[in-house]
Amino acid sequence: MQATPAYDTLTRTYTRLHRLGHLQSLAGWDQAAKMPPKGNVARAAALTEMAAMLHRMRTDPALADAIARAEQEALSELQRANLREIRRDWQRANALPESLVQRRQMAGSRCEHAWRQQRPANDWKGFLGNFREVLAIAREEAERLSECMGVSRYDALMDRFEPGMTSATVDRLFGEVRAWLPGLICQVRERQGRETLIPPVGPFPVEAQRRLCERVIGLLGFDFEAGRLDVSAHPFCGGVPEDVRLTTRFAEDDFLSSLLGTVHEAGHGRYEQNLPRDWLGQPVAEARSMAVHESQSLSFEMQLGSHPGFVAQLAPLVVQAFGAQPAFEPANLHRLMTRVKPGFIRVEADEVTYPAHVILRYEIEKPLVEGEIEAEDIPALWDSKMMELLGIDTRGNYRDGPLQDVHWTEGGFGYFPCYSLGAMFAAQWFAAMRRAMPDLDARIAAGDLGAVFDWLREHIWTQASRWTTDELALRASGETLNPAHFKAHLESRYLS
Amino acid sequence: MQATPAYDTLTRTYTRLHRLGHLQSLAGWDQAAKMPPKGNVARAAALTEMAAMLHRMRTDPALADAIARAEQEALSELQRANLREIRRDWQRANALPESLVQRRQMAGSRCEHAWRQQRPANDWKGFLGNFREVLAIAREEAERLSECMGVSRYDALMDRFEPGMTSATVDRLFGEVRAWLPGLICQVRERQGRETLIPPVGPFPVEAQRRLCERVIGLLGFDFEAGRLDVSAHPFCGGVPEDVRLTTRFAEDDFLSSLLGTVHEAGHGRYEQNLPRDWLGQPVAEARSMAVHESQSLSFEMQLGSHPGFVAQLAPLVVQAFGAQPAFEPANLHRLMTRVKPGFIRVEADEVTYPAHVILRYEIEKPLVEGEIEAEDIPALWDSKMMELLGIDTRGNYRDGPLQDVHWTEGGFGYFPCYSLGAMFAAQWFAAMRRAMPDLDARIAAGDLGAVFDWLREHIWTQASRWTTDELALRASGETLNPAHFKAHLESRYLS
Repeated sequence: MQATPAYDTLTRTYTRLHRLGHLQSLAGWDQAAKMPPKGNVARAAALTEMAAMLHRMRTDPALADAIARAEQEALSELQRANLREIRRDWQRANALPESLVQRRQMAGSRCEHAWRQQRPANDWKGFLGNFREVLAIAREEAERLSECMGVSRYDALMDRFEPGMTSATVDRLFGEVRAWLPGLICQVRERQGRETLIPPVGPFPVEAQRRLCERVIGLLGFDFEAGRLDVSAHPFCGGVPEDVRLTTRFAEDDFLSSLLGTVHEAGHGRYEQNLPRDWLGQPVAEARSMAVHESQSLSFEMQLGSHPGFVAQLAPLVVQAFGAQPAFEPANLHRLMTRVKPGFIRVEADEVTYPAHVILRYEIEKPLVEGEIEAEDIPALWDSKMMELLGIDTRGNYRDGPLQDVHWTEGGFGYFPCYSLGAMFAAQWFAAMRRAMPDLDARIAAGDLGAVFDWLREHIWTQASRWTTDELALRASGETLNPAHFKAHLESRYLS
Repeated sequence: MQATPAYDTLTRTYTRLHRLGHLQSLAGWDQAAKMPPKGNVARAAALTEMAAMLHRMRTDPALADAIARAEQEALSELQRANLREIRRDWQRANALPESLVQRRQMAGSRCEHAWRQQRPANDWKGFLGNFREVLAIAREEAERLSECMGVSRYDALMDRFEPGMTSATVDRLFGEVRAWLPGLICQVRERQGRETLIPPVGPFPVEAQRRLCERVIGLLGFDFEAGRLDVSAHPFCGGVPEDVRLTTRFAEDDFLSSLLGTVHEAGHGRYEQNLPRDWLGQPVAEARSMAVHESQSLSFEMQLGSHPGFVAQLAPLVVQAFGAQPAFEPANLHRLMTRVKPGFIRVEADEVTYPAHVILRYEIEKPLVEGEIEAEDIPALWDSKMMELLGIDTRGNYRDGPLQDVHWTEGGFGYFPCYSLGAMFAAQWFAAMRRAMPDLDARIAAGDLGAVFDWLREHIWTQASRWTTDELALRASGETLNPAHFKAHLESRYLS
C-alpha cells in the first residue's frame, strides 16, 4: 500500500470535525427536546462559538493544499469517494466568511426560539421581525455559494441537502406531479367517500401512546441501546449515528399522528444506525443526502407503515395499548391510516395530499431566496396556493399556515423538495424490491420484515455517501430518480 | 477609564472557554442522565476531543504574555479578582501536557461507564482493571501540578476543588471531628433508641415522588424555567448557571432519600442560578469552590431541609403526595428525617454519621494519590475503617463499599473533603444568620424562607469567586472556617 500523507491529514481533520460535531448535534437535540426556556441565550452563544470554531477548522488554509496533494495520491475507490465528499464540504465552507456563519447561527437560534411562542399565538408580525434577518443572511449565503459553485442561488442552498439537485429538475418533477395530483386527490376522495369509516374513540393516554410507539419502532428494528425517543414541538431525528435521538409529540385525542410520525423518524433513525461503522467519522460514511434520508423515513411510514399487511400486524398492538374497539379492526385501521383529506398541516398530511404541501413551499421559498418576493409576500401566496392546490382557506391562520414548520425559522431553505423527492425514491426502492422479491407483499403480511430491511441495508444504508445520489439510485434500482413509481404506488394503493 | 487591552484579550478568551464549556457540561449531564449505553464510545471520543481543544486554548503561549501585561494594567478590584482566577486556571492547565488531558478524559469515561455495570455486579476485580489506569493518570497529574505549585501531590489535586486548602488543615479539622464523632454518634443513638418511631408504609409511586420533589424544590426557589430535574444513577447538579440540570434517583420503597437528595441538589442549583449575571463567562463569576458549593447543598438539605420548622411545612405536602398515614405527622416525620444510623452508603447517610464516610475516603485517597498505598489495598482499608468509625462489616461487599461513589471512577481525587468542609461552612452560615436575625427559627417555622435565601444570595451566591474562600467566610460570618459551629449544630439538633 502506498503512503497517502495528504489524504491522511484530511481524514484526521474530518475525524476531529465529526467528534466536535457530536457535541453540536447533541446540543441541538437538547435545545428542542429538553432545554428550559431561559437556557436559550447561553445555548445560542455556545452553538455560535462552536459553529465559528468548526468553520475555522474547515477554512484552515492548509486544507486547500492537502486536498490538492491528496488528489495526486494513490487512493482506493473508497478513499477517492471520501475525498470527493471532503472537497465538497470544504468548498461550501470556504465560500462563507466566519462572521456569516456566526450571524446565521445566532439569527436562526433567536428566530426558532421566539417562534415556539409566536406559532401558538398566531403572531406573524412578531415572527417577521426575526425572520427578515434570517432571510437576509440566507440570501447572502446563497449569493456567495452561487458565485463559488456556478449555480443559481436557490440551487446553491438546496445543494446542501441534496447535492447536485437543480431547480430545473425539481421544476420538471413537480410540474409533472402538479399535472396529475389534483385529479388524483379528487378521484381518491370520491372513492373513499363511499367507504364506511369507524372513527377511533379517545382519549388515548400519552403513556400508552409512548409505549405503543416504542414497541412498534422496536419491531421495526430501531435499536434503543443506541438511541432514544423523546418529545419535541417539531418531530425530528437528531443525535449522531452512534446515538440516534428521535422525537415525536403526543395528543390525547389522536394516536395515529404520533404513531406514524414516530415510524417516520424511525426510518431516519435506522439509516443513521446502519451507516458503515468502519468509516465512521469520515464524510463518505454520512447519509447520502436528505432526499435519500426522507426516502428511508417514507419507506418506513408510507411504503411499510401504511401497507395493509403491516397494518394487520399493527392492529393487535393498538388493541393492547388502548383496549379493543371497532375502529381497530385491521381493515378499518388501514382505512384510517390511508384516509385522504386536504388539511392545513404538512406533517399530518396523508401521502396523496403531501406533495401539494411541498410544492407550495418550494414555489414560495425559491423566489424568496432569489429575491423575487419578500417575506411580507408569504401569507398571500400561501393562501392562494393552498386554495389552488388543496381548495382550503388559510387566510389569517398563520399558525397552521406559514408558521407551522421549523425549517424557515432556522434558514433551512432548499430542504422541502427533499420530502417529495424522498417519497418518489421510496416508491422506486419498493418497486425494485418487488422485482427482486415477487412475494414481498406476502412476506410483509406474514410479519417478515427482514427482507425489506436487508434490501435497504445492502442498497442504501451501508452505501452511505460512497456514490452520488444518481449512482446510488442506479445501483439500487437500475435507474435514476423516476417519479413514475410514485404515481404507480399511489394509484395502486388508493385506486385499485 | 484607562484602556486595558491585555486584560480584554483574556476576558475574550475566557468567554469563549465558557461558551464551549457549556457544550462539554451539557454532554456530561446527558451522558449520566439520558445517553443510551452504545453511545458511550462516541461520547468519550467527543469529550476527549473537546477537552484537548479547550486545553490548547488555555495553553496558547500568547496567554502567558497577556497575563503578565494585564498585571501591569489599571484594573478595578473586580477585574483584579478575575485576573487572579484566570491566572489560577491558566497555571493549572499549563502544568499538564495535552496528551495527559486526553488520556485522563478517555480513561475516566471508560472507567465510569463500565462501573455502571460493575457496581450492581459487585465486580471489584473488573473495576480494578480500568481504575488502575485512572489512578496512574491522576498520580501523573498530581506530580506535575505539585512541581508547578509547590504543594504536595494530594494538595495539588484538592486545590482544583477547594483552592488553597491543604491536607495539613484537613488533617487538623478531621482530627478534631474524629475525636468527638464516635462519642456523639453513641449518645445520639442511645437517646433516639428511646423514641417511638412510626415507619412510613410504601410503596411510594415514582411519579408521585417526582411531583413532590418538584414541588418542594420549587418552594425552595429552584427556577424550573432555567433548569430541569432528571434521573441518574448518581445524583448531581450539572449543566451551566443559565440552565441548571439536577438529577436524582427514585426507589419505590423510600421517598425520603430521593426527596432529601433532590433538596440537596437544589441547594447547588440555586447557587448556580444566582451567580452574578453581569460577569457571567468570566472565572470570577464562577462558584467559589466545591466546599462552598457543598455548604449550599447542605444548607438546603440539612440546615433547612431537616429543620423542625421546615419539616412541619413539608408534612402536608407529603400527605398530598401519598395520602395520610401516621408516619407523616410532623414530629414523626422530623424524627424519620433526623434518624441517626450507621450505614454503608454515604449519600444516604444522616448528617451525624456522614463525616465518618468522608474521613474514611480522605484517609484512603490521600495515601493513594501520594503513592503510599495501591488500588488493591482499598478494600481492606475500607473494611477496617468502616468497622473503626461506624462499627459495620463491609467485607466482600464492594457494591456498597468502595464501588459506591462515582468520584474515583473519573479520577476526582480530592473532592471528598469538600462535603464535610461544606457541612461545617453551612453550620457557620446559619450561626451567622441567627446572630443577624434572632427570630430566624421562628421565621422558618412560619414558612418565611426569604430571609435565608436573601442572606445566602447577598453573602455567598452573588459573591461568586470575587474573594478567596477565607475572605468570603470572613466577610459573610466574621471568621474563617470554624468547625465549632458544626459541632454546636449537631449537639443542638440531636442532643438538646
